[in-house]
Amino acid sequence: MGSRLNKPTVPRVVIFGSGNVATHLAAALDPKVEITHIVSRDKSHALALASRLKRAEAVEYDCSNIPEADIYILSVNDDSITTIAHSTPGSGLWLHTSGSVPVDVFAQSKSRFGVLYPLQTFSKNVAVDMAKVPLFIEGSDSEVTAEIESLARLLSPRVVVAGSDTRRKLHIAAVFACNFATRLWAIADGILAEAGLGFDVLGPLLQATLDKSLAVGPVKAQTGPASRGDLNVVNSHLSTLSGDNEKIYRLISDSIMNSYQN
Amino acid sequence: MGSRLNKPTVPRVVIFGSGNVATHLAAALDPKVEITHIVSRDKSHALALASRLKRAEAVEYDCSNIPEADIYILSVNDDSITTIAHSTPGSGLWLHTSGSVPVDVFAQSKSRFGVLYPLQTFSKNVAVDMAKVPLFIEGSDSEVTAEIESLARLLSPRVVVAGSDTRRKLHIAAVFACNFATRLWAIADGILAEAGLGFDVLGPLLQATLDKSLAVGPVKAQTGPASRGDLNVVNSHLSTLSGDNEKIYRLISDSIMNSYQN
Repeated sequence: MGSRLNKPTVPRVVIFGSGNVATHLAAALDPKVEITHIVSRDKSHALALASRLKRAEAVEYDCSNIPEADIYILSVNDDSITTIAHSTPGSGLWLHTSGSVPVDVFAQSKSRFGVLYPLQTFSKNVAVDMAKVPLFIEGSDSEVTAEIESLARLLSPRVVVAGSDTRRKLHIAAVFACNFATRLWAIADGILAEAGLGFDVLGPLLQATLDKSLAVGPVKAQTGPASRGDLNVVNSHLSTLSGDNEKIYRLISDSIMNSYQN
Repeated sequence: MGSRLNKPTVPRVVIFGSGNVATHLAAALDPKVEITHIVSRDKSHALALASRLKRAEAVEYDCSNIPEADIYILSVNDDSITTIAHSTPGSGLWLHTSGSVPVDVFAQSKSRFGVLYPLQTFSKNVAVDMAKVPLFIEGSDSEVTAEIESLARLLSPRVVVAGSDTRRKLHIAAVFACNFATRLWAIADGILAEAGLGFDVLGPLLQATLDKSLAVGPVKAQTGPASRGDLNVVNSHLSTLSGDNEKIYRLISDSIMNSYQN
């Protein structure tokens, strides 16, 4: 096996980015690998992250001045992945951490490349147990995939080899499940505020709902007026709503009734 | 204070219903109150619940044959609340446990009545820590409200006096936050299945999303392509969707963009 990770020396890693994903990934990899540099368009952000690591240096992004490394990890926004991939030299293994960018963003300019996509949301000051995070990986060939898997297993035992199409479906599923659920919670928050109540009153109900969906699957966990075909309640609720909230209530109720009332 | 709960004897309670709410409520009240009878249209269901309680008898529902009690609790579906309230005699305190039925369903036929609404979802075989559940109560007068509050505090310290309009808003908020989130999770589950993945891969992400929304509020917790105005990703996702899923993706993304991109 040609994997560099099988050598006794730990790989030298350069991380592009200093946002939430870069921060959590760097913290979880350090010092299992040697993070030599944090590269960012904003030097002060790079410094802030580098200062939390063993021995990383902060570097302001300049495509002509990238340090040598074994692995380059691009934890930057999707547009910047493309720009950096096309304009930055470097002969190591190139990875990005995005759910929505195909692996072949690197194909024109790099020979060894892949993806390491952690399916988690990261906030700078909230600890994440990386060992529970599913990591979806893809490599430009099977040897590269094995090398990425070795790197990924330093972070979490939940490593899944997944092509760009699977990762794309994952990302869409995560948008529905998390981003859109958050929007529904924001709507609920607004309705509660009208009644002088805080979002926290929903805490136990939300936790039980999530627990049940994870335990028996969300299809079986569905409850509520639409799923039991209670048009009296559905119409009564609709009569108090307007605008986007009314449209969302109607559309999702229809979707539930289409699925559960046939 | 004329509250019966201040007397040394514990109140005698008759519970109508043998479904999920009735089951959890009865289990949490027993033996803090004396549950004398479980009344159900289906005698075998009443028997199953009564057998799990200290000394309750099972009774098949018959409006002319209801035992005397201090408190009658109607944990039945919304339509049955109306029927039972109108047709069943009984001079005690009458309560229902619904989020969507106004308290005055009892006004025609009863003199002392109210609502005890637990904001939680109940499944027969999943334990619920009732002490964490917010209970929303309303009484036909202030003395009755105090009596219901004493009863509610036997179950949980989170007791909120809330009129029917507040309870209605709560219920609508809960439909958005829980029932509709469950629907989004079912959609995500379907998309993951196409990629050969189980819903459990989203577990850590969903838990982190919920934790963040409860910690900082869902408006601040919003993330994702729509909230950062990333139309490339939004349109790319839309191009792979159809039917209700496409409509829901478009409508909620619009709603997010309307809220976050102004």
